[in-house]
Amino acid sequence: MFTYETVVRLHHTDAAGTIYYARVFDLAHAAFEAFLDDIGHPLPSALAAHPVVLPIAHATADYRAPLRLNDPLRIELWVETLSRRSFELRYRFLRADGELAAGVRTIHVAVDSESGESTELPDKLAEAFGRRMAPGD
Amino acid sequence: MFTYETVVRLHHTDAAGTIYYARVFDLAHAAFEAFLDDIGHPLPSALAAHPVVLPIAHATADYRAPLRLNDPLRIELWVETLSRRSFELRYRFLRADGELAAGVRTIHVAVDSESGESTELPDKLAEAFGRRMAPGD
Amino acid sequence: MFTYETVVRLHHTDAAGTIYYARVFDLAHAAFEAFLDDIGHPLPSALAAHPVVLPIAHATADYRAPLRLNDPLRIELWVETLSRRSFELRYRFLRADGELAAGVRTIHVAVDSESGESTELPDKLAEAFGRRMAPGD
Amino acid sequence: MFTYETVVRLHHTDAAGTIYYARVFDLAHAAFEAFLDDIGHPLPSALAAHPVVLPIAHATADYRAPLRLNDPLRIELWVETLSRRSFELRYRFLRADGELAAGVRTIHVAVDSESGESTELPDKLAEAFGRRMAPGD
Repeated sequence: MFTYETVVRLHHTDAAGTIYYARVFDLAHAAFEAFLDDIGHPLPSALAAHPVVLPIAHATADYRAPLRLNDPLRIELWVETLSRRSFELRYRFLRADGELAAGVRTIHVAVDSESGESTELPDKLAEAFGRRMAPGD
Repeated sequence: MFTYETVVRLHHTDAAGTIYYARVFDLAHAAFEAFLDDIGHPLPSALAAHPVVLPIAHATADYRAPLRLNDPLRIELWVETLSRRSFELRYRFLRADGELAAGVRTIHVAVDSESGESTELPDKLAEAFGRRMAPGD
Repeated sequence: MFTYETVVRLHHTDAAGTIYYARVFDLAHAAFEAFLDDIGHPLPSALAAHPVVLPIAHATADYRAPLRLNDPLRIELWVETLSRRSFELRYRFLRADGELAAGVRTIHVAVDSESGESTELPDKLAEAFGRRMAPGD
Repeated sequence: MFTYETVVRLHHTDAAGTIYYARVFDLAHAAFEAFLDDIGHPLPSALAAHPVVLPIAHATADYRAPLRLNDPLRIELWVETLSRRSFELRYRFLRADGELAAGVRTIHVAVDSESGESTELPDKLAEAFGRRMAPGD
């Protein structure tokens, strides 16, 4: 499991006074990027020129409790499922009071950026993911 | 069914050269707001002060085909399920070539903004939704 | 002059109940992109691979009157200054009541995307800009 | 002076492969919010109901060097000018190599959220700002 700490800022909120629903996906992906940094496989900065990209094929969020401006937020993230050509991530968004504010799930596929076709995950990435599979690892 | 026309703009894209995955949720909600305008029940501008708000309890997206900068986009939206206290919307994101780029689903609940508790949908909104249930209406 | 019509949507707002200040820059650039479409020089979708890009060197906004959820918005845009290697755009954000809500200014420079160095504006783009210089053209 | 550390993430970038120009304003305001936390005057979470709000009347950015995906970023922020009813902030965006990537300036005014009129800055906030005026404080 990987933990990412952040705070709900004004640009995450909307006129209803709480976090705008789509911003949890921004925060989830930022947590995923920090996780990739942590395992030594950061997203390449010239992403459009990289041979393998990891676009999201499916994303889902369940919203349980409101997140407000200035709420400290802990995002727990782990690899739920690992396949040759795809993987699934789970994220738990926890408020400072320990309450589960949201649960997010993303399914990523490995794509050859030249052909646009599905391809295999790079071995080293798959290995690194394999070591971070469980919520309690 | 309601149709919303837009274009993929630079601020929707990311360094991979296509639409950033969370932006489809921004676009889906903008389409929903245009739908509310169309049926005569626009979101109130003082949302935080309104007695009933319609937060999203669940959101999901399936990504089928890439959306690139300048791609014209047609979003078809309809009410899939209507209950006393909630409703489910479906959205189809269609490119100019007719290809389905993404499918989105949001489940909204009516919440009393004072108490934060679930409440009933306002009658007039439920009626208006009832008239726009099916993809082919 | 070029006119772009839009509406303030929930994802533009923040917990203060009005538009989040940075979103006027998203909207200004979307208006600029629609202007480029209109003059027949749309931003290329494979921007990272294009020989000349038009990054912004300077941006400024003055906020005059609040913009709220659902406010219809007319953005007037024109080329204020045209040089061999740069140009300046001006934008007026007008509410439905005709009130000036914001004024924006962006200065763009032509950059060779290979070398990262300043370069000349493509002739055809400069010509097209030349024909759209004044607020009253 | 106040220092805020962050990283350029995918949702800050666009199809040109670098940071989208408006995102520096998101990051600047997030740094300002962290500064308010630091001086003990966090933005109230029920912003729309708060008697005094601090909207931005003017914002400007100068872009000097590209910021790419995964670039670590240090934002230095200070109060440049303090008046009874307004204040000006300056921000320097520094890359890990020490290069100045962008300079930002925001002018905030104190506004009575009931009347929408200009008002005086709360004394305690003015005092706290007074102690954090200079880049070298």
